[in-house]
Amino acid sequence: MSIAAGKPVGRLDFFFEFASTYSYLAAARIADLAVTRGVAVTWRPLLLGPIFGAQGWNTSPFNIYEAKGRNMWRDMERLTARYALPFAKPQTFPQNGLKAARLTLALPDGPHRAAFANAVYRANFAEGRDIADDTVLAALLSDLGEESAALNAAAATPEIKSALRCNTDEAVRKGVFGAPTFVAADGELFWGHDRLEQALEWAAAH
Amino acid sequence: MSIAAGKPVGRLDFFFEFASTYSYLAAARIADLAVTRGVAVTWRPLLLGPIFGAQGWNTSPFNIYEAKGRNMWRDMERLTARYALPFAKPQTFPQNGLKAARLTLALPDGPHRAAFANAVYRANFAEGRDIADDTVLAALLSDLGEESAALNAAAATPEIKSALRCNTDEAVRKGVFGAPTFVAADGELFWGHDRLEQALEWAAAH
Repeated sequence: MSIAAGKPVGRLDFFFEFASTYSYLAAARIADLAVTRGVAVTWRPLLLGPIFGAQGWNTSPFNIYEAKGRNMWRDMERLTARYALPFAKPQTFPQNGLKAARLTLALPDGPHRAAFANAVYRANFAEGRDIADDTVLAALLSDLGEESAALNAAAATPEIKSALRCNTDEAVRKGVFGAPTFVAADGELFWGHDRLEQALEWAAAH
Repeated sequence: MSIAAGKPVGRLDFFFEFASTYSYLAAARIADLAVTRGVAVTWRPLLLGPIFGAQGWNTSPFNIYEAKGRNMWRDMERLTARYALPFAKPQTFPQNGLKAARLTLALPDGPHRAAFANAVYRANFAEGRDIADDTVLAALLSDLGEESAALNAAAATPEIKSALRCNTDEAVRKGVFGAPTFVAADGELFWGHDRLEQALEWAAAH
């Protein structure tokens, strides 16, 4: 749980997937916004693959529905410009975020986990790097001063694999159908980067 | 085209469908927001049926994908509360907006068209009325001081039927895949009530 300035007044589960463009925006912005509102955020990676599969999709809906995809990429250009975030449309979409998600869970919840997640998002959506590549992930960890060998070993344990499956399963039970999704302590669910501020307001008030 | 205070500095096509929940929010809010930004709005009803059909859906995606639908209804409760708009989940969703869309096009673009569209949305999403019922539509027109008999006759002409088909076809050519969608004079497209303010800012600046 990220440490807010003073005692947090609320808490929020942040469900994200490394292949998700709008999750990138949420990951880049949530920490600062949460601190000013006194909300403690739990960073919970999940996999959209099984969730989309249950809806009958074998890839991102942005690939299945062409006009919807075209709009999303243009929307990302506009929104990253608005928030002064780096952006370059990746060659491959969606990328496989499985290894990155497991490494994220191998880091303790807190600033280190958030920093690694943001580094993975930049690699995917700004730097044209392959986030399924062990070398790329090891470099991102090293840049943050983390021990990539130890974390890779931890990420391969049954405990971490199970933790990722449980995040995904629990998200579905809570009503999650896409990412990013924010779930407050009382179960109130907010879908999409567009609801980030409202989710934090709710978490601070409930 | 709605008249803005002073000479409009931009213009925006507002594509909406009477069955669409988020179009209700946009219709209720766009006129006032556009005036303060000096943007002239053209109210263009369309039918989502053919657009969704081309995507392989025979009803609203909010009915096809249960968790997505549950979130939408809860989101509508929160957003209508936020904007102080009346709301009651209709018994039937989606309702058939064909007749209402034709009547809308039989009214000259301007305040009368906007007022009728808003009355239809309230009937659908706040008053539990059947917007495919001629009696209901006639009552809405009468409440606004319109001649319902003459408008019904106009709405049944080939010209009006064709105008609605052309709105839908042109929307698809511009990249529309859902509603509400806003398209600026330079072709820039913004999808969803969440992009209403950004669309108006763009229209005023381009």
